[in-house]
Amino acid sequence: MTLDTQPSIIVFDVNETLLDITILEPLFERIFGNRLALREWFAQLILYSQTMTLSGLYAPFGELGIGALRMMASIHGATVTDRDIEELKERMGRMPAHPDAIPALTRLRDVGFRLVTLTNSASSPSPTPLERAGLGDFFERAFSVEAVEKFKPAPETYRLVAQEMGVETSDLCLVACHLWDTIGAQAAGCRGAFVARPHNALLPGPEVPSPDIVASALTDLAEQIIERWPVD
Amino acid sequence: MTLDTQPSIIVFDVNETLLDITILEPLFERIFGNRLALREWFAQLILYSQTMTLSGLYAPFGELGIGALRMMASIHGATVTDRDIEELKERMGRMPAHPDAIPALTRLRDVGFRLVTLTNSASSPSPTPLERAGLGDFFERAFSVEAVEKFKPAPETYRLVAQEMGVETSDLCLVACHLWDTIGAQAAGCRGAFVARPHNALLPGPEVPSPDIVASALTDLAEQIIERWPVD
Repeated sequence: MTLDTQPSIIVFDVNETLLDITILEPLFERIFGNRLALREWFAQLILYSQTMTLSGLYAPFGELGIGALRMMASIHGATVTDRDIEELKERMGRMPAHPDAIPALTRLRDVGFRLVTLTNSASSPSPTPLERAGLGDFFERAFSVEAVEKFKPAPETYRLVAQEMGVETSDLCLVACHLWDTIGAQAAGCRGAFVARPHNALLPGPEVPSPDIVASALTDLAEQIIERWPVD
Repeated sequence: MTLDTQPSIIVFDVNETLLDITILEPLFERIFGNRLALREWFAQLILYSQTMTLSGLYAPFGELGIGALRMMASIHGATVTDRDIEELKERMGRMPAHPDAIPALTRLRDVGFRLVTLTNSASSPSPTPLERAGLGDFFERAFSVEAVEKFKPAPETYRLVAQEMGVETSDLCLVACHLWDTIGAQAAGCRGAFVARPHNALLPGPEVPSPDIVASALTDLAEQIIERWPVD
């Protein structure tokens, strides 16, 4: 990767970056009496997805999510019923798009960027959560880490996208509201663009890669990408 | 590893398993108005330590801890001063032993198990936190993941202990109150024993290794180890 390399393909993270996970809050409010328990659950889900990959193991993201919910119930003395599990799956299947998603995707597509997604979630039959949220048509391809059975931020996940698209990782810019995702993408040779959603922030540290682009909304992020890496 | 292999060396995780991290709570209470913010911080610290290792990067655990504290301050609109950082380090240096630690370690040592520690924390000059807590004399060796520059649960961390002790990983039983640690240890060929400290629980899932031993206190855990794997 050289400094003058510029990405032509923008790779979007899905959960929380494009789709709004706060639709899950009423479930956590009911089970734990606190809607912010969603944050604890999501952090534990990500932590254990990384644990599995570091350990050379794999289970679908959705199964780990159910396990993390049951773990939290044990910790907090709460009860999780089969109906709660069904509601978790159902709500995850109909997460709405963040309001800044369609304007940003429209801008990036119109100036000529190729757009794909890469998610920790397993693939699902159509209509997918992205399609239900009205975002399906923006993307050439929708990648799941299940193809390599390793979760982000393992380098194999970003290389999967590059290989399937027939490009180098330096042709990719990963967009996410989770720094752990841009850290991994940048370590694998991609560019990284960070959008600061609520309950997310940068983690400063001398050895921690800073994102190439930081924005408070996807619309601003899209403009920064267009300005920095103009499409020929 | 065969089913009749039994471990002769017990490898203890340190933070939260032997030493009580709740001594940090007053700091989190002051900064975030909520002592349980400690839990969010510790989960994010573990998550980002795993992120770094998956990305082929390394920074000392203490530095990531400071970064995670600053990240949380950004998220919650709180302020972290240099004095707060100093207090974090100071409190982490004098975490007390859990009350069940000395009785359990005494029992295991007296029946002939060899005892060592393996921590994500960087090594520190004497007196170390373990020594200050009165636990230093129980252990033949104190290992830090800094030697391999990968955080637990990377398999290299457990193999480090086996190599340095001149044994196979199947000779080791890893004791921790964090399932992510026993998952990694078991995937690397060790036995895993889980002690259920407050705010910790098992994560059930079909592909997630169950610990060989589960206990609610280190004293009970020690008795189970002695009963299951009697020393010749």
